[in-house]
Amino acid sequence: MPGAGRAAGVRRLRPQRPEEPPAREDLLLAAAYVSDAQYNRNVPFETSPRAIRLYYFYNHWTMQVAIYFFICVDLSLALFEEPALFPLPFLATSIAEVLCLTAFFGRLVHFAKVTPQMVFWKDTKNICIMVTIVLTLIDLIIYGSLEAVNIHSIRWSRALRPVFLINFPESRQIRRTFRSIRNTLPDILYVFLLFMFSVLIFSLMALKLFGVRSLKTVEGLPYFTDILEIAFELYVLVTTANSPDVMMPAYNFSRWYSLYFITYIIINTYIFMSVFLAVVYNNYRKHLKNEILKLAYLKRRKMIEAFNILKVKVGTEFVVTEAQWKRLAKIVMPHISSPHLELLLRISDEGQKGHVDKMNFLRLADLLNIQVVAINIKRHPLEDWMPRVYQSSASLLVQRMVRHRIFVWVYDVIILVNAIFIALDEKKPFISNAEWLFLSLYIIEILLKLYTYEPRAYFGRKQFWNWFDTLIIIAALVATVANATIQSAGNYNSQQILDIVLILRILRLLRIIVSIQRFRLIVTTLINIGPTILTFGGLVLVVYYVFAIIGMEAFQGKVWFFDPNFTTPEAQVCGNPALTGSAFARDHYCKNNFNDLASSFIVLMELTVVNQWHVLAGGFALVTHQAAKLYFISFHIVVVILIVNIFIAFILEAFFVAYSLEKSEVETAIEKKIQELGVGVQEEEMQDGKLIDNMDAKDSGFSGDDGDNKRKALKGLYFRIASKKYRTVDALLQQMFESEITPEDEGPSLDEILNLSPSDIYPKNPSFGNSA
Amino acid sequence: MPGAGRAAGVRRLRPQRPEEPPAREDLLLAAAYVSDAQYNRNVPFETSPRAIRLYYFYNHWTMQVAIYFFICVDLSLALFEEPALFPLPFLATSIAEVLCLTAFFGRLVHFAKVTPQMVFWKDTKNICIMVTIVLTLIDLIIYGSLEAVNIHSIRWSRALRPVFLINFPESRQIRRTFRSIRNTLPDILYVFLLFMFSVLIFSLMALKLFGVRSLKTVEGLPYFTDILEIAFELYVLVTTANSPDVMMPAYNFSRWYSLYFITYIIINTYIFMSVFLAVVYNNYRKHLKNEILKLAYLKRRKMIEAFNILKVKVGTEFVVTEAQWKRLAKIVMPHISSPHLELLLRISDEGQKGHVDKMNFLRLADLLNIQVVAINIKRHPLEDWMPRVYQSSASLLVQRMVRHRIFVWVYDVIILVNAIFIALDEKKPFISNAEWLFLSLYIIEILLKLYTYEPRAYFGRKQFWNWFDTLIIIAALVATVANATIQSAGNYNSQQILDIVLILRILRLLRIIVSIQRFRLIVTTLINIGPTILTFGGLVLVVYYVFAIIGMEAFQGKVWFFDPNFTTPEAQVCGNPALTGSAFARDHYCKNNFNDLASSFIVLMELTVVNQWHVLAGGFALVTHQAAKLYFISFHIVVVILIVNIFIAFILEAFFVAYSLEKSEVETAIEKKIQELGVGVQEEEMQDGKLIDNMDAKDSGFSGDDGDNKRKALKGLYFRIASKKYRTVDALLQQMFESEITPEDEGPSLDEILNLSPSDIYPKNPSFGNSA
Repeated sequence: MPGAGRAAGVRRLRPQRPEEPPAREDLLLAAAYVSDAQYNRNVPFETSPRAIRLYYFYNHWTMQVAIYFFICVDLSLALFEEPALFPLPFLATSIAEVLCLTAFFGRLVHFAKVTPQMVFWKDTKNICIMVTIVLTLIDLIIYGSLEAVNIHSIRWSRALRPVFLINFPESRQIRRTFRSIRNTLPDILYVFLLFMFSVLIFSLMALKLFGVRSLKTVEGLPYFTDILEIAFELYVLVTTANSPDVMMPAYNFSRWYSLYFITYIIINTYIFMSVFLAVVYNNYRKHLKNEILKLAYLKRRKMIEAFNILKVKVGTEFVVTEAQWKRLAKIVMPHISSPHLELLLRISDEGQKGHVDKMNFLRLADLLNIQVVAINIKRHPLEDWMPRVYQSSASLLVQRMVRHRIFVWVYDVIILVNAIFIALDEKKPFISNAEWLFLSLYIIEILLKLYTYEPRAYFGRKQFWNWFDTLIIIAALVATVANATIQSAGNYNSQQILDIVLILRILRLLRIIVSIQRFRLIVTTLINIGPTILTFGGLVLVVYYVFAIIGMEAFQGKVWFFDPNFTTPEAQVCGNPALTGSAFARDHYCKNNFNDLASSFIVLMELTVVNQWHVLAGGFALVTHQAAKLYFISFHIVVVILIVNIFIAFILEAFFVAYSLEKSEVETAIEKKIQELGVGVQEEEMQDGKLIDNMDAKDSGFSGDDGDNKRKALKGLYFRIASKKYRTVDALLQQMFESEITPEDEGPSLDEILNLSPSDIYPKNPSFGNSA
Repeated sequence: MPGAGRAAGVRRLRPQRPEEPPAREDLLLAAAYVSDAQYNRNVPFETSPRAIRLYYFYNHWTMQVAIYFFICVDLSLALFEEPALFPLPFLATSIAEVLCLTAFFGRLVHFAKVTPQMVFWKDTKNICIMVTIVLTLIDLIIYGSLEAVNIHSIRWSRALRPVFLINFPESRQIRRTFRSIRNTLPDILYVFLLFMFSVLIFSLMALKLFGVRSLKTVEGLPYFTDILEIAFELYVLVTTANSPDVMMPAYNFSRWYSLYFITYIIINTYIFMSVFLAVVYNNYRKHLKNEILKLAYLKRRKMIEAFNILKVKVGTEFVVTEAQWKRLAKIVMPHISSPHLELLLRISDEGQKGHVDKMNFLRLADLLNIQVVAINIKRHPLEDWMPRVYQSSASLLVQRMVRHRIFVWVYDVIILVNAIFIALDEKKPFISNAEWLFLSLYIIEILLKLYTYEPRAYFGRKQFWNWFDTLIIIAALVATVANATIQSAGNYNSQQILDIVLILRILRLLRIIVSIQRFRLIVTTLINIGPTILTFGGLVLVVYYVFAIIGMEAFQGKVWFFDPNFTTPEAQVCGNPALTGSAFARDHYCKNNFNDLASSFIVLMELTVVNQWHVLAGGFALVTHQAAKLYFISFHIVVVILIVNIFIAFILEAFFVAYSLEKSEVETAIEKKIQELGVGVQEEEMQDGKLIDNMDAKDSGFSGDDGDNKRKALKGLYFRIASKKYRTVDALLQQMFESEITPEDEGPSLDEILNLSPSDIYPKNPSFGNSA
């Protein structure tokens, strides 16, 4: 049934779950259909490529950038709307918003085109976006017409804007974290209820113990007399923000009352907060494993499907012919170099029998995913241009010197001396002149290194620290020169440029990290998990945005900031007499307000850090209503108890994974083959951090072919696996779980996979602590 | 060589590593020697039992209690020495101290008697104790003689007292945690250095950015002008204690400067602090696994050794005869009941061949360790005394009612109503009378339950919640009656008793936890890890004690507490003019001082909670010297960065283990055998929390025989494995790791075991997250 095959091929073009990326195995499966069609010449070739083009266009980077641009514009509208940082008329912002909504709608229509109707309408994400578009339009119309008759209403739909950020297929990382939070909620709810019960029990005790003693707080207010007030104070104590102040009146009255507070802190602050972390962490791991195992099973299934399309019977077993295999690989990775393809074929077709068996075919997606670095051993360009000079004994001495360990040490000492000079007062001419000396020393260092090492290797893709070094130095050079020019031109001294020069000058000191192996390892791990930390940035942005919009509606204009030199009584109470005598006014927190988006974000940041949050909450409760504290408590629960704990869980997991870095089975196979074929580079030569000498490491995994195609395959090229240091945590996790699926295991059926619950996947017989 | 055998037997009596407890396998090995000797009649029997007696005497509980008593006395001497809470003359405290030292020395001599000389002198613990004893005596003499001529010197040896607590063999849990900390130090050191480097870089930036702007803090002091001051403030910001105050002056000056602080907080507060937790946690797991695997290997080796002593050849394989096996079990557990012994034999001697093979023999220690509960199905005593009344329809109705779910619900409602009554003002007579009503309702509930359920089952060993219920109610009853009596006797109203009555009345509300399954589960887990949390109590005590002694020497008498009503200017500045205008005085922290041990502990507790610690540090720096801040910083590093993180790691691990509770292989074998023999009780009947009806669960694992010996073995008795809920985390961990050793694996040699490094044990091919 060629027709059915074609339909299936087109259908398969969109990923199984619309939120998954167009992964290599999807392309492989689609390509298998195409390749099969071409081979059999049964179906017209044109239809499939058109569907592929529409699909590719949907996934093209310009479309994705465009949609992110509109999301950014939509979110940043809050900067220009009342209460605005840069006020714009309502008409301007509403036109911009309608434009964004149109773009979102267009994107959705395009998505509907490449997705079967059933799947499209079943997906809650699409429904969400449509509902939000409609709601926003309704809100715009109501608000606009009310505004026209001068009635000021609330633009409530603004809090819905992050829906677009969450629900577009591109933000699946953020969505995954949200899912993980949602899945954790039932478990955490019971702990939270028990925790609240404990707080209430302690509140009752406090009321009975301290309420009758007519004690006074430091501010002279009655101490622990109202049960709601007590419960709030004790909740704050859990966050440690009012320790030890909340204890002092009772402690001053009698030493023994400190026991009450110590018990409270041990139970609620230490034990319960750790239990929250434990529950969040446990669920995070469980669901992470679940999601990743799902992906792994899906991949396996797709590869099996592709195999079944392409298989031919040779002898007793089904195989894929070499020609078919090559055609497939070329379709999926059009830019693959012939030596690379040859290498992969030799790995897949172990016995050189002219065909690839099932087990090896299933590994194809992994094989193509592994970034094999083709290394061209190249000579230094100077050696080509003036070999006599470059090879002269003086030149060789310089090169030996630069490569010597002492060279590194000397520059470490220079950096330390520089640090001391920076700490000293730069007003003295001696010290400001020294700055030029240091700058030139650093530039000389880079030039010497470029003289010694092959420049293209020195600035190789993965040479993070070399790039860092050079960029910092060049930026410092430019800024210093600019500053000096401005200074000498007029006597005008730009503080902004000076600030930047100073910061760059200090950042240069970070280069010392490069010299200390242990430091470099820690920093590299942190940089590796950087991309996923950005996911948390997205998550935090969403939550902050919603809370900021609500906060602005509730608290705008209640508190004003006056210039610090302006000491009228009004300025002392932030322009609101309700704050007279409050801790908020006493601590000069007037600038912590919700009068525009930027200020709101900074207040929310302060609330995330937790300390003094009760002062902020108390201040805003005074200028509005006691119920305002609920806003701050719910922010604490959402951000600190949930998100920060997930963040900590993530960092813990990332570090554990980084500690147990291992090569995957497929990688080992590739490396073995590379060694067998004698085209490998010794691992030691490539040690991270050590400069690659005379080698140009090119990433032939994804980059185009490099003109070496004409050479005989596997000649003159050396391969190595791209360093695993630079793989993402997600990739590592996936690789770990995949090793748990045996090669023969075809996995559960598709429906089973999609409905996997964590407990199904979870091993029944756990052994402990392997990941540490 | 019978002589060699005997010597080995005596030597083996002390555990391999002196710090391990006299474990079952040690006894088994010793008993194997004894049993072998008895059997062979080659060596005189007398010598070994005497050695055993000396060893038993050393390990007798009275000796252990005595040594703990002396440790407590020694530590509590700080309460009576200058600066004292209850002053005693120097002569009295020094005599008490000398007494304690004598006791410690005596214990050490006793230990030397039961330990070979070589081992004794090799053990650093013994050396530590001896050196500390000598140092303390020297210090006592110097201090005493100086005191005699009226020169006041420092009693520095007091800070060494916790050495006794740590180094006596009984405190191996604390020691293990200390070892774990020590092993973590190298790893954490590099992270800490990098972190300090980052703080310094940021300090330099702050100096350059803000130092020249002549900003002022809220107190009107210069802002960020001194590099040391800045570094301290930024260190405090890492603990979040001075957020957002430290940012406000710069933020008030320009909005953009908030970026500096946000970057700082994200890098240092969030990422670095999480990395500290990750490193501590990772090391904690690694070393925990290492230690426990060591124990497991040692146990295996000892069992093999015991087997080799007792083995006889039957057919082609070596076995232990049934008689020999029984004798051995009887020696090790003299009080084991015959049915229990019979049960174990049937498990070990699967085919009833009259002998036990090697594999089964190796399991003997585990078998004996598993607490098999022998259940006697007994009738209610009332049924025996007056069967007619107890079985009457009215009585049966009452019993049905009590067992019904609605009975629980009714009492839940009563508790809630009670909570509301407690929250109301108890001055009104209506409400104070209601208290009597509630009290009687609770007593009726307990009586009804005792009527319905068999009392011995109701107060069974593991019925924690029943005990809790009853004790709370009885205590409340006693206290309420006592209070009423005192009140009616005179008009004297004892506030202390009233406080206790109030607290007990509120604690009664905790009974609601029992009714909610999910709450009960969480609390049970917390109670399970309770004993190990106490280990942390010991650890914290040691660190607090040392810091308290140092703090008292450095800060005693610098700050004084005046009665809050006493408002002279001197009282406002805590009796020290240096504090004028400081945050310490403004916040009325005068009672947070180091003037006696109790106050010091409370200050240290506040420092552990972290908030406002910079105010305390700043205050004590003002009254002494800026260098005093180092004391507070080092306390923060030791307690918050190390110990609190280990505590969190422990709670996380305990929760993960609790989530993955599984039966061990040996337990499964026993349960299978119990079922096979038809003497089991259905698991469902025994579900946790449900009351055991008419059953008397006796712990025959360790308790004596129960008169049932006369009955035919395995008749009339029912067995079940003691609920795993109540096992300690340590036991669970051990069981988990043991399953990783295959039965055939005899483990590495003894020397190898004792020198195992974590990396040797660590699996080379980790799979991820099994323990979650």
